[in-house]
Amino acid sequence: MASWGERLAGVRGVLLDISGVLYDGSEDGGVPIPGSVEAVARLKQSQLKVRFCTNESQKSRGDLVLLLRRHGFDISESDVTAPAPAASLILKERGLRPHLLVQDGVLSEFDQIDTSNPNCVVIADAGESFSYQNMNKAFRVLMELESPVLISLGKGRYYKENSGLMLDVGAYMKALEYACGIEAEVVGKPSPEYFQSALKEMGVEAHEAIMIGDDIVGDVGGAQRCGMRALQVRTGKFRPSDERHPDVKADGYVDNLAEAVDLLLQHADK
Amino acid sequence: MASWGERLAGVRGVLLDISGVLYDGSEDGGVPIPGSVEAVARLKQSQLKVRFCTNESQKSRGDLVLLLRRHGFDISESDVTAPAPAASLILKERGLRPHLLVQDGVLSEFDQIDTSNPNCVVIADAGESFSYQNMNKAFRVLMELESPVLISLGKGRYYKENSGLMLDVGAYMKALEYACGIEAEVVGKPSPEYFQSALKEMGVEAHEAIMIGDDIVGDVGGAQRCGMRALQVRTGKFRPSDERHPDVKADGYVDNLAEAVDLLLQHADK
Repeated sequence: MASWGERLAGVRGVLLDISGVLYDGSEDGGVPIPGSVEAVARLKQSQLKVRFCTNESQKSRGDLVLLLRRHGFDISESDVTAPAPAASLILKERGLRPHLLVQDGVLSEFDQIDTSNPNCVVIADAGESFSYQNMNKAFRVLMELESPVLISLGKGRYYKENSGLMLDVGAYMKALEYACGIEAEVVGKPSPEYFQSALKEMGVEAHEAIMIGDDIVGDVGGAQRCGMRALQVRTGKFRPSDERHPDVKADGYVDNLAEAVDLLLQHADK
Repeated sequence: MASWGERLAGVRGVLLDISGVLYDGSEDGGVPIPGSVEAVARLKQSQLKVRFCTNESQKSRGDLVLLLRRHGFDISESDVTAPAPAASLILKERGLRPHLLVQDGVLSEFDQIDTSNPNCVVIADAGESFSYQNMNKAFRVLMELESPVLISLGKGRYYKENSGLMLDVGAYMKALEYACGIEAEVVGKPSPEYFQSALKEMGVEAHEAIMIGDDIVGDVGGAQRCGMRALQVRTGKFRPSDERHPDVKADGYVDNLAEAVDLLLQHADK
């Protein structure tokens, strides 16, 4: 394999996944991953541009940033690309009035959106709100539309909390897709449009950017398909078998964000 | 199109779907479709062999037959092919111990099955039991297995009750398939094995048998792929667009079961 110097040459911007890279999420706020608070601080003090790119759709961007700041991270709302505000923009642009199947915590992102007489469905990681009744409600809205529009905030399969593995929005998106015979529009990783909006907000071209994430498919594969480089950290949802993934090969595997930042500060933009 | 005489020539056995053909199901027991009680009686008095082939997985076969007899249908348990007893046989044969994601009403079909230390998941039309918590439980059982086995009692997309359209087991099967990266084994229509078991129980070859159902894909398409003929009734979940379905063309469309039986008694086995 090429040296780190070759692999990281010309990197000017860094996209960071949040959950599993900065901290391990859980019902009660989670804990920072050792070394990550300092790693983010060092990155922000460097010449590299930094942006956070998350699929978090249970919390508003404001609540997420508040939580991270409480853990000691140097992060502000304007540093974060998140699916709910991105979807909110799309809804406004296209004049869509959503039926929202989301958790209360993220409702504030849709404050400015007309939800009367819905002409689409927006589905997020709704957790306990994925009841049979709520799924039927969303399903019926879609079935009454001539051209059903389903917008899914990410398409993750599952994530890990203290109490065990939890089904993510992708599973419920698939249920509605199958029942309605439609395909959802995904707002979030690994959608190319989503990565491109994060790059644009950072002001960096794809070939100058690197993604650091714990999800071999959503983070690494998605970023590479957009022409970016990508590192996988061995934290969060990483599994040893990811390093032998049949379709996706990261540009590098590192133990954690701290190691990734060490390498970047040593080799990038040289 | 060929005459009814040609289309029905040589039919010796009739497979009947139940919900949407015999009666319209609903939360409170449903109502018989006009003419269906008499049609079943005439069929059973004829030379034709008759078997009922359903995907009903909310009720036990005993409860379903009790309900139908109360509506006046001449039907007994041994006349019915249903997915829960079929799955129960498969579990026994293969030594599988299921985690059951089903409604209480169908639990009795699994009375004889060891459910300790599960090594597979069986999913049925569980209705309100499709909570986030129960879906996570089933998901976690699958993720802990080296080779996850998911058995789905049918793969219907949705059905209609008085209160509106309801998501069927197929949607939740797709959610678990996607989250686990596996494919479910379907016990029920349109699985070829399921139709073949019904034919075997009736003692009739596929080319001598005809399916009568309201589902263009599950009943008509599934039966035809097994070498049977199939009629669609314009009752139950029938929609006018079914007669222009891109992939499936029934051997005939009839207004209801009564018309189908009229035609069969006139033309079959001649």
